Amino acid sequence: MMTYPACQTLLLDQQPGVLQITLNRPDSRNAMNLTMLEELIDTLTIAANDEQLRAIVLRGAGGHFCAGGDIKDMANARATGQNAYRELNRHFGRLLELAERQPQVVLVVLEGTVLGGGLGLACIADIALCLEDARFGLPETSLGVIPAQIAPFVVKRIGLTQARRLALTAARFNGDEALRLGLVHHSENNSEDLQMQLDSYLQQIRQCAPQANARTKHLLLACGEQSMHSLLDQAAEAFAESVTGAEGAEGTQALVQKRPPSWAE
Amino acid sequence: MMTYPACQTLLLDQQPGVLQITLNRPDSRNAMNLTMLEELIDTLTIAANDEQLRAIVLRGAGGHFCAGGDIKDMANARATGQNAYRELNRHFGRLLELAERQPQVVLVVLEGTVLGGGLGLACIADIALCLEDARFGLPETSLGVIPAQIAPFVVKRIGLTQARRLALTAARFNGDEALRLGLVHHSENNSEDLQMQLDSYLQQIRQCAPQANARTKHLLLACGEQSMHSLLDQAAEAFAESVTGAEGAEGTQALVQKRPPSWAE
Amino acid sequence: MMTYPACQTLLLDQQPGVLQITLNRPDSRNAMNLTMLEELIDTLTIAANDEQLRAIVLRGAGGHFCAGGDIKDMANARATGQNAYRELNRHFGRLLELAERQPQVVLVVLEGTVLGGGLGLACIADIALCLEDARFGLPETSLGVIPAQIAPFVVKRIGLTQARRLALTAARFNGDEALRLGLVHHSENNSEDLQMQLDSYLQQIRQCAPQANARTKHLLLACGEQSMHSLLDQAAEAFAESVTGAEGAEGTQALVQKRPPSWAE
Repeated sequence: MMTYPACQTLLLDQQPGVLQITLNRPDSRNAMNLTMLEELIDTLTIAANDEQLRAIVLRGAGGHFCAGGDIKDMANARATGQNAYRELNRHFGRLLELAERQPQVVLVVLEGTVLGGGLGLACIADIALCLEDARFGLPETSLGVIPAQIAPFVVKRIGLTQARRLALTAARFNGDEALRLGLVHHSENNSEDLQMQLDSYLQQIRQCAPQANARTKHLLLACGEQSMHSLLDQAAEAFAESVTGAEGAEGTQALVQKRPPSWAE
Repeated sequence: MMTYPACQTLLLDQQPGVLQITLNRPDSRNAMNLTMLEELIDTLTIAANDEQLRAIVLRGAGGHFCAGGDIKDMANARATGQNAYRELNRHFGRLLELAERQPQVVLVVLEGTVLGGGLGLACIADIALCLEDARFGLPETSLGVIPAQIAPFVVKRIGLTQARRLALTAARFNGDEALRLGLVHHSENNSEDLQMQLDSYLQQIRQCAPQANARTKHLLLACGEQSMHSLLDQAAEAFAESVTGAEGAEGTQALVQKRPPSWAE
Repeated sequence: MMTYPACQTLLLDQQPGVLQITLNRPDSRNAMNLTMLEELIDTLTIAANDEQLRAIVLRGAGGHFCAGGDIKDMANARATGQNAYRELNRHFGRLLELAERQPQVVLVVLEGTVLGGGLGLACIADIALCLEDARFGLPETSLGVIPAQIAPFVVKRIGLTQARRLALTAARFNGDEALRLGLVHHSENNSEDLQMQLDSYLQQIRQCAPQANARTKHLLLACGEQSMHSLLDQAAEAFAESVTGAEGAEGTQALVQKRPPSWAE
């Protein structure tokens, strides 16, 4: 297992193949301040190099996921001027860009408040689970500001047609609506079912070869960012590497020998 | 309030913050002729400069939204030849491009016939409401022609997978199917519920700061047209401007003073 | 009717305006080997030049659609090395690129197994019909390899949000879930209803002018691959050509004379 620096705002729990990161500022519904931002970036960067790691679970302490950006940081930025606001805002976008490209499977567990930046963070998940009564929304324009780093990830997640309605009305919505919109993959009625769904997904991910999953995720994220033709050329190269590599050999042998492959044990 | 030139084919109704434009050629189910096209372009261009304006409602007179392009204009173009057809067609696309980028929130109210160009126009709405029994469709290829300026906006609205089915079969569908396809946001059973839904959205839009909404819409429409990275750079700049501007100051103060901001009064 | 070379792995059935291609290796659930790949490419290439042809139906023999790539070809490639894998893989992507751009309306009928490459092939259909109990999935990463040529077509079909969940968990799902995901357009309870739905679509396609449909499909596939503005310029040109061409003239006359156009007889 990797060694992570001590965190003020995050709880880290390492299980075999799985790292759970809990946003831990429950008094402010896990609002994201600069420290949390830095600690998330550092933790994800270390985790990216952990070849034993298969999945990262991101959730919040105290019954809430994340209430967005912290007001105090905003107040401090106000004292410093327009550049400070720009940097603070862009820094959050850097976290989203980094988290999106995490080589492991990223799962988010959404309870209670999922607002603004919290909703943005949810949008980079490979698998998103929520409670029916979670409260989602983009309140920015009702406060006179804009969902700047968030909106592009919301459009990428649920499409322009719904993103524009949500962002231009500051509408609140619950977990079932989040499911209908395609923001999450499952909306559960209670915490037990939510945990069971999470465990079931972690079990499924263990059936998949770690490096094959990382290669596949890289490929999926490249879709739409280059021409289909050149993407398929690269994909064929990656396929040849995967099938002739250790995982491809083990997967083929396991299939012939009718046993689970080593990574699924 | 702004002054608009008198229109032959449109009814304009100005309420505080809201402009309602009614397509008004009920004898031909509001089919779009050249005059209507020009009047829509002129009206939207004037409205774009109205800083007091928050929302534009687009609907049709006599129980129909719009039956598409007018046959008579097509017949006139036939007399003039291929260039005239190309120009007439492209001109309608210019209206769609312009209407899509309208800085205000655009709502469409869809009743009765929503065919061809009428369906294309519906696709640029930020919020689209319809009656369950509205009749949608792309009849072009069943008439030997193509949904030229329309198809790209339909793909952008509901995705390629459904757009190809609809366009290549000239299928008709109702409001509930339009909701399922993601073409509209709500499908209502009767006119009273439709009006209530519209009023409720206009009320929600009044809670949002007008310039913040315009900036947010601009950002949403830029998604997918440039790299995520450069888009986020620009978004951070826009965020800093919004938070240090008049709306950002008022929004923050209102929050601290626990009162509605000036724009929501 | 066109003349097609005799096929080892495909059954071809020509009806007026419709070519049905049946993948015919039922002993291996129609797994795609190199011969099938070549025969599909040849058949589709010949069909592309058949101006009388309106629709192509793609289905599988023996109650299955397609189980993906054939294991034996993979074993042969293993003997030859990494280049052989790359070429074999890329060749399948070439079939998908070709089939996607088929000028006729392509319908797929999905029964039983729809795995890996079979699922990829389903993703290029203009109209996709399935049985409720069909079994879909991307098993690649559970075998230590990646859905290389397939994943980009899955993302294009159902979006990144669902594609990442399916590819990174190797999840299996049935026809109703395929409908919910937007992978198919209809999920039917039994073979009779499936055939009726297929016949109904073929009937609808006969109402649409063949060349107009081919032009429209070309336009739809170009969406997102160039700027909206230049796409609309080209679309206006194509519109002018279609309306002044034989189909446009016939369509207009048929409308005036209140009779079905020649292509719908």
